Amino acid sequence: MSQPQINHIVITREPGGPDVLELVERDIPVPGPGEILIRNTACGVNRPDQIERLGFYPAPPGAPEGLGLEVSGHVVALGEGVTGHTIGDAVVALVAGGGYSEHVVAPAGSVLPAPSGVDLVDAAGLPETVFTVWTNVFEIGALSRDETLLVHGGTSGIGTTAIQMAKAHGARVIATAGTPDKLALCRKLGADIAINYREEDFETVVNEAGGADVILDMVGGSNVQKNINCARAGARIVSIAFLQGSRCELDLMRVMLKRITLTGSTLRARPVEEKARLAAAIHKTVWPWIEAGQVIPVVDSRFALADAASAHERLDSGQHSGKILLTC
Amino acid sequence: MSQPQINHIVITREPGGPDVLELVERDIPVPGPGEILIRNTACGVNRPDQIERLGFYPAPPGAPEGLGLEVSGHVVALGEGVTGHTIGDAVVALVAGGGYSEHVVAPAGSVLPAPSGVDLVDAAGLPETVFTVWTNVFEIGALSRDETLLVHGGTSGIGTTAIQMAKAHGARVIATAGTPDKLALCRKLGADIAINYREEDFETVVNEAGGADVILDMVGGSNVQKNINCARAGARIVSIAFLQGSRCELDLMRVMLKRITLTGSTLRARPVEEKARLAAAIHKTVWPWIEAGQVIPVVDSRFALADAASAHERLDSGQHSGKILLTC
Repeated sequence: MSQPQINHIVITREPGGPDVLELVERDIPVPGPGEILIRNTACGVNRPDQIERLGFYPAPPGAPEGLGLEVSGHVVALGEGVTGHTIGDAVVALVAGGGYSEHVVAPAGSVLPAPSGVDLVDAAGLPETVFTVWTNVFEIGALSRDETLLVHGGTSGIGTTAIQMAKAHGARVIATAGTPDKLALCRKLGADIAINYREEDFETVVNEAGGADVILDMVGGSNVQKNINCARAGARIVSIAFLQGSRCELDLMRVMLKRITLTGSTLRARPVEEKARLAAAIHKTVWPWIEAGQVIPVVDSRFALADAASAHERLDSGQHSGKILLTC
Repeated sequence: MSQPQINHIVITREPGGPDVLELVERDIPVPGPGEILIRNTACGVNRPDQIERLGFYPAPPGAPEGLGLEVSGHVVALGEGVTGHTIGDAVVALVAGGGYSEHVVAPAGSVLPAPSGVDLVDAAGLPETVFTVWTNVFEIGALSRDETLLVHGGTSGIGTTAIQMAKAHGARVIATAGTPDKLALCRKLGADIAINYREEDFETVVNEAGGADVILDMVGGSNVQKNINCARAGARIVSIAFLQGSRCELDLMRVMLKRITLTGSTLRARPVEEKARLAAAIHKTVWPWIEAGQVIPVVDSRFALADAASAHERLDSGQHSGKILLTC
């Protein structure tokens, strides 16, 4: 936790492959009212970072410069009016950008105490996936204990988190993945059924298992109709990304007849107040699961901040299981 | 209110045009436990009746024989255990079939007192549209007073009811229709903006007016993407029919970015207990609007029960505004 005079951050020089990422020097930011300055221990690498690197996901207005949506670290300065945090506290934070850095400023409402029992580097991989799964599966999807969650990409950061949180909640979980190793990981994390989508038709398998009540989808494309076809009456299908594209040919008849809800959301552009509300709910419900070991950050690999390009090569390859982290 | 010894009902001889409707004789049904026998004064003609006549909308199991989903009339017999209704009461009822008849049996929970101040023939046009608008716009759509409803087919039975109920609630209403006369009727019923969809692009007009929070759609097809495009952040788009077909090419990106909900429902197949719950909510909230004259049944035309074929010709023509009724 040395205190450099300058702040190294990773920016995207121009849209492109991993090699457009560049470590540059900036002044250490000063926290404004209601903000906290964090000396980062690590930051998480997420799918939206890749899309932003490619030039398709501009940062919302006012976001810190550079890539990166989540960090772990220690509080080093408090802006005006911040209460409930103390300098030196180990924390994790959701940020609207700039997480690939040595220092970042976060709204106090997006900062949570680092959960006990979790390595502080690994904890950097929690905020983005936990906030995303909480709001999409638990709030928007309203998954109840006697229901079934279908999650695609079961070994992605989102997938590993969704499987564990849904199981901690008491629900049944079906996950899809593309290799035997990834299927084994899904099962190890608690998935009741793991489907190799390359070898089996997930729609058929899910229907044979009685259908899904909540479906978390980041695939889009032809997946969406198949989700509709294996959704139970009253199901909620929540799209959080479109890796196969957002254009779909759909027959909405079953949406009407089964009273299905098709919806989706993004996290980054939500107002600070909304993120603070989510953080409070997560602190109350999900933090105990994490501290009890029911939900653990599943880490694929760690890279140095200066080697963010290698981390993105790993992300682009799709071979990772769990989170890729940068140590700051 | 003569009491015939036999019951005349209208059935569909075979799938086809209006001339397949046939008046036949049946025994007067006997109400089972929890059911009420009604001597019908009139019944409403609805779009689902047309689809059923064409052979595409089979009746749910246990539904009374014949077409017709709503009636007005008088209670003539009570099944075992029915309370809160008395023989001779003027009532309206939602039925799962068999409304085109002199007598029909309805579950007691689907029977409401005829609202005061409304002609009992006209009142037959209330249940199907009021239940449909209530559940889709108010419950599923959760329209609030400070929001905007967009309703397509503003002069259909559903449309005229949706405009009036949303205005009685205090919301802003935008309606679409296809002729100057129909636009004038939308405005007369309270629509703040009426759009001629043949001459103007409704997506553009709605966006210029600030967008819609709840959209009630019975068109489907290319309308769905346009609904998505003029929906406000957090909007709910509810499909209740697909006159242009249920197959759509959609780009779901805006559904995710604007956190839109695409959903839909049908009324007929819902369990009796669910309809009773809806009836109680409607009696509490919508009946006062009707009795205060804020929501009136808009009647296009009346035909004799034996002339149901002419009523269906009128429905098929699409020239009607408001409800078509059969007098029993």
